Amino acid sequence: MSIPSKRLNSVNSVGLVKTKELTLFEEEEFYFESGAKLSPIDVAYETYGTLNSKKDNVVLICHPLTASAHAAGWYTKDDKRPGLWDPLIGPGKAIDTNQYYVICSNILGGCYGTTGPASINPETGKEYGLNFPVVTIKDMVNLQKALLDRLGIKQLAAVIGGSMGGMQVLRWAVEYPDFVEKIIPIATSGRLKARTMAYNQLAIDAIKNDPDWQNGDYYDSNRKPTKGMALARKIGMITYRTSEAFQSEFGRDRIEDKDFYSLDNQFQINSYLDYQGEKFMNRFDANSFIYLTKAMDLFDLSRDYKSFEAALSKIEAENLLITIDSDKLFPPEESMEIVEGIQKVGGKIKHHQINSEVGHDSFLIEFNKLDDPIRNFL
Amino acid sequence: MSIPSKRLNSVNSVGLVKTKELTLFEEEEFYFESGAKLSPIDVAYETYGTLNSKKDNVVLICHPLTASAHAAGWYTKDDKRPGLWDPLIGPGKAIDTNQYYVICSNILGGCYGTTGPASINPETGKEYGLNFPVVTIKDMVNLQKALLDRLGIKQLAAVIGGSMGGMQVLRWAVEYPDFVEKIIPIATSGRLKARTMAYNQLAIDAIKNDPDWQNGDYYDSNRKPTKGMALARKIGMITYRTSEAFQSEFGRDRIEDKDFYSLDNQFQINSYLDYQGEKFMNRFDANSFIYLTKAMDLFDLSRDYKSFEAALSKIEAENLLITIDSDKLFPPEESMEIVEGIQKVGGKIKHHQINSEVGHDSFLIEFNKLDDPIRNFL
Repeated sequence: MSIPSKRLNSVNSVGLVKTKELTLFEEEEFYFESGAKLSPIDVAYETYGTLNSKKDNVVLICHPLTASAHAAGWYTKDDKRPGLWDPLIGPGKAIDTNQYYVICSNILGGCYGTTGPASINPETGKEYGLNFPVVTIKDMVNLQKALLDRLGIKQLAAVIGGSMGGMQVLRWAVEYPDFVEKIIPIATSGRLKARTMAYNQLAIDAIKNDPDWQNGDYYDSNRKPTKGMALARKIGMITYRTSEAFQSEFGRDRIEDKDFYSLDNQFQINSYLDYQGEKFMNRFDANSFIYLTKAMDLFDLSRDYKSFEAALSKIEAENLLITIDSDKLFPPEESMEIVEGIQKVGGKIKHHQINSEVGHDSFLIEFNKLDDPIRNFL
Repeated sequence: MSIPSKRLNSVNSVGLVKTKELTLFEEEEFYFESGAKLSPIDVAYETYGTLNSKKDNVVLICHPLTASAHAAGWYTKDDKRPGLWDPLIGPGKAIDTNQYYVICSNILGGCYGTTGPASINPETGKEYGLNFPVVTIKDMVNLQKALLDRLGIKQLAAVIGGSMGGMQVLRWAVEYPDFVEKIIPIATSGRLKARTMAYNQLAIDAIKNDPDWQNGDYYDSNRKPTKGMALARKIGMITYRTSEAFQSEFGRDRIEDKDFYSLDNQFQINSYLDYQGEKFMNRFDANSFIYLTKAMDLFDLSRDYKSFEAALSKIEAENLLITIDSDKLFPPEESMEIVEGIQKVGGKIKHHQINSEVGHDSFLIEFNKLDDPIRNFL
């Protein structure tokens, strides 16, 4: 059971919101981890609540792979759904906008307003495509830091995020230890395991196999790699939910009027996956998907440090790590490496495990299960 | 640890073998479950050991999805590897050819000698392609029965098989109860769950998305759907092994000389999957893969019966069901539905669970773990 998203006119909604844009690195260049540099960089971000005079009541939300800066509120009165974490962000909610100034920015390499492969390279007047530099989680965090600097933020009361957002949260705490007071990484990993990288490879293969991908140069073309994107999404979906969730929702239920002795899709599970693929294929940029997926593969908290523990020993923030017991993408055992590592180096960390039948996606659906742990920790 | 395949000159090898061919249904037609009919049908099969005078010492091996009739022995002295289950089949082995006459035939719809979508339709002189009738597990079993009839076999001492082979084993016991004395279904299911059908859909999508598939009409073309087939195989691989197996074998190990800041594959797990995809894409027919994968989706032991238990109640054979504790494709819980169902209807069934770190593929790798249970049961 999830708490339904409150309606726009609900008293504890952040209400109508707008995505803001800032252009950074107009003078100096942004340096990627790889040494590549870029100028300028647009950043799309949203804010909810009010910045206090000390500018230290900021909660930064780090969004997962295919999301945007739209973490809460409604774009229009007729919006069908609010921002991704709306049930958790607002006046009196777990992340209380009466107390906190909440910021969420679209990540570097994304395709919802922040500069990424689908953005126009001012030098050529064409989309960057595969000429965009390889992006890492650290690069995303560094751009978020630059945005906060520009906004005059001196301190983060908390950084919170799930899945790839959780990787950013961990990187924040390691790279900017005295800037961050509290962190809540959710359903995430300190470094991807081989099997998760395998899933990522399948999704990227699905896109690259699509001739309409055209080696990333599809922007001026009528042909977009929609089939590849749809398949990439379906591959993802299989990791986001448990087998039990699929079984209880679809089982072997058939699509009405479909022939049994046929090669066509005829089961409800087929129809569900096709629907998910179709919803996704036109809403996300294929190159952006490839870059962000690669950023996950490359993420290893221990890189540039002597060991995984050495990286964790940099963290000064108070920690609440949240795992989901049925998570097949980042199973609790994988996250526990972080808990145990921090304990090993004498750091403090709380661990909360969510019991869920949903799997990884629980952190985007079962908001009631996140509400108390986040509220109490903040 | 697996028992290494014995060399050709080993005393307990079945030695050099040849695949035999028979043409069935030259006069009358073969009726598919769907009502479609076909004539004639070639069947490729191998036999090991000697048929006794009563013709009742026969063990039928049902092979899994992408295999052939080559269950044991060597084709040539220079062969790099023997038949699929060679360590289990031979003089003195678990399936003892001193005692049993072992038969394994390529399944209907396959592409290793038995008629399938890649076979020539004598009426058109062209490959059947997508004009081939939809094949079910029951159709495969019915063709095996026709082969045994032609060979004069009156009784099966045992039917044994894993994965999709296990589905054939179960169907055999339900459809021909008085023909089968013992069955050993291994790492299998009585009806696929939604998530397994989802994996199947991804693999089929991967092939159909490949423009070189050409709606199944690629036989006379220079272009074959190799990319789609490679991806389909990689999707399969992820279900055949455990996350732990991938992690202990590959972890985050990188391919030498690959740039870190790159979109290219750079991890050993990537290299492994690419290798598996490449090995597969030229050895199997894409349409055959689609038909056989669909046959799994359509498999439901309870179809044509009032209930799952009603189907199981038809079984008269002695049963040994083998599960693999780490099997992610057909987890033990799924197979236990069969055990519990048979117990419910008052039937007898033994259950043996293999402890393995490999996952589903254990039944094709860890022969030492199958040896005792099969030997003792036979």
